[in-house]
Amino acid sequence: MHSEDTLRRLKTIEGHLRGIIRMVEEEAYCIDVIRQVQAVEAALKKVSGQILEGHLNSCVITAVQGSDLAERQRVMKEVLEVFETATKV
Amino acid sequence: MHSEDTLRRLKTIEGHLRGIIRMVEEEAYCIDVIRQVQAVEAALKKVSGQILEGHLNSCVITAVQGSDLAERQRVMKEVLEVFETATKV
Amino acid sequence: MHSEDTLRRLKTIEGHLRGIIRMVEEEAYCIDVIRQVQAVEAALKKVSGQILEGHLNSCVITAVQGSDLAERQRVMKEVLEVFETATKV
Amino acid sequence: MHSEDTLRRLKTIEGHLRGIIRMVEEEAYCIDVIRQVQAVEAALKKVSGQILEGHLNSCVITAVQGSDLAERQRVMKEVLEVFETATKV
Repeated sequence: MHSEDTLRRLKTIEGHLRGIIRMVEEEAYCIDVIRQVQAVEAALKKVSGQILEGHLNSCVITAVQGSDLAERQRVMKEVLEVFETATKV
Repeated sequence: MHSEDTLRRLKTIEGHLRGIIRMVEEEAYCIDVIRQVQAVEAALKKVSGQILEGHLNSCVITAVQGSDLAERQRVMKEVLEVFETATKV
Repeated sequence: MHSEDTLRRLKTIEGHLRGIIRMVEEEAYCIDVIRQVQAVEAALKKVSGQILEGHLNSCVITAVQGSDLAERQRVMKEVLEVFETATKV
Repeated sequence: MHSEDTLRRLKTIEGHLRGIIRMVEEEAYCIDVIRQVQAVEAALKKVSGQILEGHLNSCVITAVQGSDLAERQRVMKEVLEVFETATKV
């Protein structure tokens, strides 16, 4: 289950993004827009980390303790893929 | 001046983000949410690159060709800061 | 246990880095040096992913299946920290 | 011209990387190895930033102030490419 805090953070980020759209519409200075976009990226990374934390402490533990080997491998592969994408975006 | 394409991309990202909020509200699988958050991050990086491209080809050239040395240093410092933040977020 | 492939990759990266040092000593063009530094960073990320893969499929599974709750939490916290650092560097 | 500090940093990173190779050879704990690899990545990013700073304040200014339009476009394109790669590695 996702936390209330995750949802709250995502809604804050949505507001932040709408602010950036307004900045672009009002022809704000490029560098100021880029800085705000980078702030949104940093906020999204915190959300990803938070969701992953919940995942590691619930689904991953359940899968690893379960008797289904294929399920366990699938879950570990997903965690690795998320890590590998994180190092690219 | 910002391009129409930048604005269009940001609005698409806003829609994408609203979709993620719905996913969290509907208790979607953690890894699926993280993947969508990472897709939004990648889209935001493309927007940053696009805005920087416009900036390098307009403001930066104007500043560097101008006679105000302090202004030139300020503009170059900003580009460097954006690069340094990009390597952190 | 670390794989032979991890060791081989790290030694290749060491050679790549020595090449970059020579480029700097010989006053190579800045952008060419930066590109090579970025290639080394990408190669290091692949190594991290490979080591994490081995870790998830051995130590993490052992800890999660074990009876020591504190050890399990420690191992999960480490994986999360590595993810969070990966999104910053 | 590259600074002495850039060269010194790169040689420190080379020593750091050799230390990581030893860690792997001596079967150090996976997470400890990953942390050191991430520290090397962070150090490399600082070096890239430093080299880019020198580049912006020399070659880029020379090109932008020069009369060769194609050269100016080439230099700006390079800076943008380095930024785009930085957001991916």
